[in-house]
Amino acid sequence: MLYIGIDVGGMSIKAGLVDEEGNILFKHSCPTGVERGYVAVIRDIAQLGLATVEKAGRRMDEVKAIGIGIPGIMDQRTGIIPFCTNLAWHDVPIIEEMKQYTDLPVYVDNDATVAGLAESVKGVSAGTQNSVFITLGTGVGGGVVLNGKVFSGAHGVATEIGHMVTVAGGLPCTCGKRGCWERYASATALIRAGRVLCAEKPSCTLMKHVDGDIRTITAKDVIDLAMAGDADCVKIFDDYIYHLVVGLTNLINVYDPEVIVLGGGVSHCGDFLLNAVRSLLPKYVFFKSMPYARVELARLTNDAGIIGAAMLGR
Amino acid sequence: MLYIGIDVGGMSIKAGLVDEEGNILFKHSCPTGVERGYVAVIRDIAQLGLATVEKAGRRMDEVKAIGIGIPGIMDQRTGIIPFCTNLAWHDVPIIEEMKQYTDLPVYVDNDATVAGLAESVKGVSAGTQNSVFITLGTGVGGGVVLNGKVFSGAHGVATEIGHMVTVAGGLPCTCGKRGCWERYASATALIRAGRVLCAEKPSCTLMKHVDGDIRTITAKDVIDLAMAGDADCVKIFDDYIYHLVVGLTNLINVYDPEVIVLGGGVSHCGDFLLNAVRSLLPKYVFFKSMPYARVELARLTNDAGIIGAAMLGR
Repeated sequence: MLYIGIDVGGMSIKAGLVDEEGNILFKHSCPTGVERGYVAVIRDIAQLGLATVEKAGRRMDEVKAIGIGIPGIMDQRTGIIPFCTNLAWHDVPIIEEMKQYTDLPVYVDNDATVAGLAESVKGVSAGTQNSVFITLGTGVGGGVVLNGKVFSGAHGVATEIGHMVTVAGGLPCTCGKRGCWERYASATALIRAGRVLCAEKPSCTLMKHVDGDIRTITAKDVIDLAMAGDADCVKIFDDYIYHLVVGLTNLINVYDPEVIVLGGGVSHCGDFLLNAVRSLLPKYVFFKSMPYARVELARLTNDAGIIGAAMLGR
Repeated sequence: MLYIGIDVGGMSIKAGLVDEEGNILFKHSCPTGVERGYVAVIRDIAQLGLATVEKAGRRMDEVKAIGIGIPGIMDQRTGIIPFCTNLAWHDVPIIEEMKQYTDLPVYVDNDATVAGLAESVKGVSAGTQNSVFITLGTGVGGGVVLNGKVFSGAHGVATEIGHMVTVAGGLPCTCGKRGCWERYASATALIRAGRVLCAEKPSCTLMKHVDGDIRTITAKDVIDLAMAGDADCVKIFDDYIYHLVVGLTNLINVYDPEVIVLGGGVSHCGDFLLNAVRSLLPKYVFFKSMPYARVELARLTNDAGIIGAAMLGR
């Protein structure tokens, strides 16, 4: 069978026709046009998705389902998206809307969840039944696959791993709590630490690197200088790795997956990140003599959203 | 079908014959005699378990499996118990040993896991498919049921929730890490806080309550005084509840269960604990407008170990 996979982002809608093994047979995209409201956006999602079948030269009766990845959460019981900040969606009845355009079963899930599923079908965690995918970006998102299936919990709000508290009473989070993991393990955490460094030590290399404009500091700036051996940025990076590993060991303690996949912006620094995590993790794992999750970098890049969304219907 | 369930503790071995619905048809027990070593203890486990069938007046061909709950962890891939501190067991081939006495399938799992399964079959979480059981005792243990089945992870070391770090860089833990949840949410945490109080303020009510011997402080002493309105102990209790709730919201973020069941010694203070948790939890839950796990007290007491072990084979 074939599957239509759609990756909905704030900037573009990407749709692809995907086979049973996660191969993309045809893909195309269009701008999201968030400002038009959800009715128009969902119409485009449906039309773009359905058009992949004809453009790939296949028949509709070969297609089993449509899957959609969204940058928000989905209430699986009601078929409604309660929140989707990047699309400015609130209580959007996506399943009902989609039914106007197709009789195919429609599956919707969070984009990090979908990306994790894609990695477990076609990426670095292929062949495993239990994996945790983590996006290290503006925040920290998660996608959990257990027994080969997306794990969303009883109310569809599981795997909000970025808001797992690892520093009780720590830094205030956007969610209203203090000490959430994403305050310490996201790209934003590296930027914040870089800004604090420049404020406290204006003579630092990072300050020169950004020509004195601390508003322009990126996670990549901090990591690049850490890779180059700048002592201040090495310290920031080491602290980042410590907090990242604390959260990873928590995930090992609760999910005990076969593999943890690191994705998102911070993961683009590659082996520098991976080697640091791999060297510190054994120190913090609870059962040191038992096997535990291996840590890997995400392998699929732009196509993860299409492939994972398609695989929701498999 | 019927199931033999065996609850192995440091002091006694309890065995029962259990029906499909989790009802105990017959039970008996004997001292564990840890000092005799694992061969003798496992022989007793097998004989005590098998004897329940005859004593209940049933036939062996009605019995589907034997389940065993142990105060340690089980490596499901190898059939070996790597650690079981209370029994002084290390690398014990329990499946192989049991095979000498019976051809029935043998299932072994951690005692908190087993108690959680029992609650989900016959206790407060009966009727749910996804539950998290937490023992608030010397440490903090966990038993997770997902889709109606015990969740043990890929390597059998999942649900080590007591060693989830909630205070990175916090109090040293027996496991070698710092800031594990059980340092803040166990009965031991209440005792430690009580001792600190007495050391810093020898005129406190708790000090009088224990006749000046801070070595005798129990979690119940601290809770009893908090219930009576003693300001110092109320403060300790409130801090305890905060840390307990931080961990509970983490569990909601990762497992999103239908129900969280509080068991173990601290749970015996009943509604005083439950009401405190229920009133603080909504403040820390991530998706405030979405449904989330209800929190309940464990209902099964001494029989949870037998029932849950039996249900491993169901």
